[in-house]
Amino acid sequence: MFVILVYDTAAERNPKVLKTCRKYLHWTQRSVFQGELTAAQYRALTYALNAVIDPTHDSIVTYTARSPDMIAATTIGATLGGPGDIL
Amino acid sequence: MFVILVYDTAAERNPKVLKTCRKYLHWTQRSVFQGELTAAQYRALTYALNAVIDPTHDSIVTYTARSPDMIAATTIGATLGGPGDIL
Repeated sequence: MFVILVYDTAAERNPKVLKTCRKYLHWTQRSVFQGELTAAQYRALTYALNAVIDPTHDSIVTYTARSPDMIAATTIGATLGGPGDIL
Repeated sequence: MFVILVYDTAAERNPKVLKTCRKYLHWTQRSVFQGELTAAQYRALTYALNAVIDPTHDSIVTYTARSPDMIAATTIGATLGGPGDIL
């Protein structure tokens, strides 16, 4: 599946959130990651994120589609992330 | 079409970017908007954003799908925005 992930987490937890996201997705822009995952990888990612956030304050939203073909991504202005940013 | 918009723009231009996004979409989370637009509204939004950003520094990415049915949105942790935030 194709995954877009946006996070709004407290600064002190950002390093752990970033580290977790980077394991599975590539960075697109400030607080945005995207990538293709299997269902099992997606479950592992959400499980890992649940373990590092404070669910009363932090928020992470994922948008998933069965295939990247279903979503068109368009950049206005500067292109920040890219496939080369897969860590 | 269903539109997810994420912006990474300089602080001094954020108010204009926010104002433009709020005309067309509803706020989801820090630097994220989403909503359903016609093709004409989407063109008007991107045109308006191009007029307020500095394309050498600012970046806005839109993800569009023909229908919201093609995308599943899942929140981990706190739900921040919602339909009530349409301005």
